[in-house]
Amino acid sequence: MEALLVENGTISYRNDYPRPEPAAEEALIRVILAGICATDLEVVKGYADFSGILGHEFVGEVVGAGGSAAEQWLGRRVVGTINLGCATCPVCLGEGPEHCPHRRVLGIRDKNGTFAGYVTLPVSNLLRVPEAVTDEEAVFTEPLAAAVRIREQIKVRPAARVAVIGPGRLGLLCGQVLALAGTEVLMVGRRASSLGLPAALGLATGLAMEQSARSFDVVVDTTGNDKGLAEALRLVQPQGTVVMKSTFAGEAAVDLGPLVVNEITVVGSRCGPFAPALRLLERGEVDVTSLIDARYPLAEGKAALSYAARQGVRKVLLETGG
Amino acid sequence: MEALLVENGTISYRNDYPRPEPAAEEALIRVILAGICATDLEVVKGYADFSGILGHEFVGEVVGAGGSAAEQWLGRRVVGTINLGCATCPVCLGEGPEHCPHRRVLGIRDKNGTFAGYVTLPVSNLLRVPEAVTDEEAVFTEPLAAAVRIREQIKVRPAARVAVIGPGRLGLLCGQVLALAGTEVLMVGRRASSLGLPAALGLATGLAMEQSARSFDVVVDTTGNDKGLAEALRLVQPQGTVVMKSTFAGEAAVDLGPLVVNEITVVGSRCGPFAPALRLLERGEVDVTSLIDARYPLAEGKAALSYAARQGVRKVLLETGG
Repeated sequence: MEALLVENGTISYRNDYPRPEPAAEEALIRVILAGICATDLEVVKGYADFSGILGHEFVGEVVGAGGSAAEQWLGRRVVGTINLGCATCPVCLGEGPEHCPHRRVLGIRDKNGTFAGYVTLPVSNLLRVPEAVTDEEAVFTEPLAAAVRIREQIKVRPAARVAVIGPGRLGLLCGQVLALAGTEVLMVGRRASSLGLPAALGLATGLAMEQSARSFDVVVDTTGNDKGLAEALRLVQPQGTVVMKSTFAGEAAVDLGPLVVNEITVVGSRCGPFAPALRLLERGEVDVTSLIDARYPLAEGKAALSYAARQGVRKVLLETGG
Repeated sequence: MEALLVENGTISYRNDYPRPEPAAEEALIRVILAGICATDLEVVKGYADFSGILGHEFVGEVVGAGGSAAEQWLGRRVVGTINLGCATCPVCLGEGPEHCPHRRVLGIRDKNGTFAGYVTLPVSNLLRVPEAVTDEEAVFTEPLAAAVRIREQIKVRPAARVAVIGPGRLGLLCGQVLALAGTEVLMVGRRASSLGLPAALGLATGLAMEQSARSFDVVVDTTGNDKGLAEALRLVQPQGTVVMKSTFAGEAAVDLGPLVVNEITVVGSRCGPFAPALRLLERGEVDVTSLIDARYPLAEGKAALSYAARQGVRKVLLETGG
């Protein structure tokens, strides 16, 4: 099969990579579309020290099954959660695999990802895609779930003043999710050119430099860079909440004084629940396809990653030929 | 009167500083004892860019009054909260002056502090000290209130695994306050020599290097240095809570990856409520006097600050002669 791999920061495309075999209670999935996320770009830079097939966002079709439990999934169009827990530790038996200390993570830790013709996943990770949801929408399920995660972690009052820093591929999902239930969300960008799409999506917009300090109850950092937290700490009001969505390799230099003096709460936020995300897509409550800037065949995956890393580019999709 | 001043990082003692006059609804307080806090040491280094009389911890006696409302306080032994709000903004009219954007702060921002013979405060900042509470105990009201603040901000489950990093002057107050209601609190230090007093106070103790990662539901950083957050992020379990009590000048270099990946909540924490702190002192539920390592006359205030900055030294008190 074809596959896009990373090893020591080097990306390579192969069309002779061995197709994986589904283990017991796993499905073999033909990848229809995969999406490039900022985390993939960080993985290439060394984040998580990963070697293997990149990628964790996808929509696909189950074409093979490991055992009878998996067979009922054959032929179904699916998306899949990305954490594969040990299934035996208290974390897995309690809340689930997201924080299992032994977990593997699709395309990020000890598990080949979705930038490939095929991928295997335990059937317990799969969700069926509703018919009304297109492939182009379904491939956004994972990042949309990550946006929904914020609402699992903090209360978003409908009258709260909310800002999302970074009107990019993840920021626009967070903004739309936070705006549900009547909240006004300000999408904050560094350049006017980045604010057109958020405005078209019905979100309020503003330039970072024009925002007053201490103006928001909730500030979400989706910048993906080491300056995001400092800017969020500037914008949030005393006793307000900052949600950190950015993962990046390396250290950030942060003046923690405002955090303590203004008694800010900073909440790290990662993976979210797929079922609500799929419901949002099915109901058409979130516009995801407007975020698609390009589609590349997987054979041009390296160029696709470069394009996805360009300023202002939002979602780049990869199409595989099996 | 005598006073210990800081200006551009230079400490000076004067015995001819003009005694302040109480304005309307203010009390003139003769300082009996003042306490040195890590924040004072940071103010000397440049934190908050303060010039004037240092200090914010004190117990004193009201000896003068600005107007009739203040006169009823004459002769009373008092402690005082340190934030002086504008009393007109929504923050002051709502929760109180602690987060007023226009606030002055005793010995920290635009308001002469307590390392002096006398200090003025609005009577609305004063609390009467119960008779059963000695001067040596009452001078701890402000830092004890700061420890109590943690319980105002987060729920501390009695069965939670709690660690306090830094068995120092603030850490031991936080540890004792968090241990109330049956919680086991581990005081984490870098040197065995720092763990004797916490053990004597009935707290569990351990060396930082011997603590496993992800072992605690709640970790409180009271180190007062830029390494504290990184260590707290190491010790806290996924989805756990880190409370930041350290204020210091300058930036910290922090790998924010664990914060996001492990979905940690970091809560900045500053000033707390005095009334519960006084009740804890009155009931003898927290031992504060064991933390006193030295008493200096204010004339030797510079030496007292140097001593307070030494590794392993906890509370240093200043005595004033008026």
